[in-house]
Amino acid sequence: MSESFEPISRMTQELSRLPGIGQKTAQRLAYFVASMPLEDVRALAVALWEGRKAIRFCSRCGNYASGELCPVCADPRRQNGQICVVRDPRDVAALERMHDYTGTYHVLHGTLSPMDGVGPDDLNVSSLLTRIQSEPVSEVILATNPDVEGEATASYLSRLLKPLGVRCTRIAHGVPVGGDLEYTDEVTLLKALEGRREV
Amino acid sequence: MSESFEPISRMTQELSRLPGIGQKTAQRLAYFVASMPLEDVRALAVALWEGRKAIRFCSRCGNYASGELCPVCADPRRQNGQICVVRDPRDVAALERMHDYTGTYHVLHGTLSPMDGVGPDDLNVSSLLTRIQSEPVSEVILATNPDVEGEATASYLSRLLKPLGVRCTRIAHGVPVGGDLEYTDEVTLLKALEGRREV
Repeated sequence: MSESFEPISRMTQELSRLPGIGQKTAQRLAYFVASMPLEDVRALAVALWEGRKAIRFCSRCGNYASGELCPVCADPRRQNGQICVVRDPRDVAALERMHDYTGTYHVLHGTLSPMDGVGPDDLNVSSLLTRIQSEPVSEVILATNPDVEGEATASYLSRLLKPLGVRCTRIAHGVPVGGDLEYTDEVTLLKALEGRREV
Repeated sequence: MSESFEPISRMTQELSRLPGIGQKTAQRLAYFVASMPLEDVRALAVALWEGRKAIRFCSRCGNYASGELCPVCADPRRQNGQICVVRDPRDVAALERMHDYTGTYHVLHGTLSPMDGVGPDDLNVSSLLTRIQSEPVSEVILATNPDVEGEATASYLSRLLKPLGVRCTRIAHGVPVGGDLEYTDEVTLLKALEGRREV
């Protein structure tokens, strides 16, 4: 019956659109929300709606921003001629967690995927070319994911940028720190061997 | 950096209050919400807020209701003198999925738990007594969960109700359909043996 109880079924339906939230989990969450204090549900709904409305994109690099520029582009200490190219704003967040990289970013908002009809024009590429022509760029670090689309995107960008005289680098592939050789796939092992360095 | 991006961190914080949603999952969901179309986020936020606001409780049985009575209590065909006592509205939903039970429910909104300071007065018990005195009740089916609190609550209610001349029954314990004897715990096996029936 309670599935035919409209407020619960509507919450369930909307929650089940989120990634990794199936029908059962969505229903469990809906019942939890139904038992939450009104003010807490209000805070959740407001955080989602106001949060989504507050999402802007940096006019320079495409990262999330509150104003015209994202916090990285707005920081004058980060203008060292390095541009790290990533797929998503969440990749920027992952790299920033290192607290080690001092250059800027460029967010593509996707990767090349001919199967899904995603070509270079669907990505944030033209503004990267503009930046390279207008900023003193010494290096473009291609930090797309080490999967088929990410590799294709990195090699497309390197072919595009090298003729402009820009140094292009690709992040290293290898065995993850804390990983186990026994459970590492062959391609990663091959890359780890190829990328070996003198110690 | 993007964790210090306020809209994302606020969404993450609110989402991580939901059960089974840890910090990492909450962040993943927040990034997903950030990339959703505005209208979809609006639909989600409205479903949660309006849904929560629409939660009322049936004045008779304590189940979720849109009006004065829940759909079960409002259905005159369900007045057959059976009252099935459960802990939560979600238990009502689970039992209704059988499409077999034709009586009404009574939702306790909890179970006795002296450790957590939950006594009989904290549960929806007095209205159950009122119903037994004012409705033609032939049987009270105690369908609290088969755990310590649920068993304690069922035995408390049967001691309370039997002197009123009401027949009290407890749902059967046993091996779940599709289960495996090998992996069934001893207590359940004992209950299954005790509850054996002629075939």
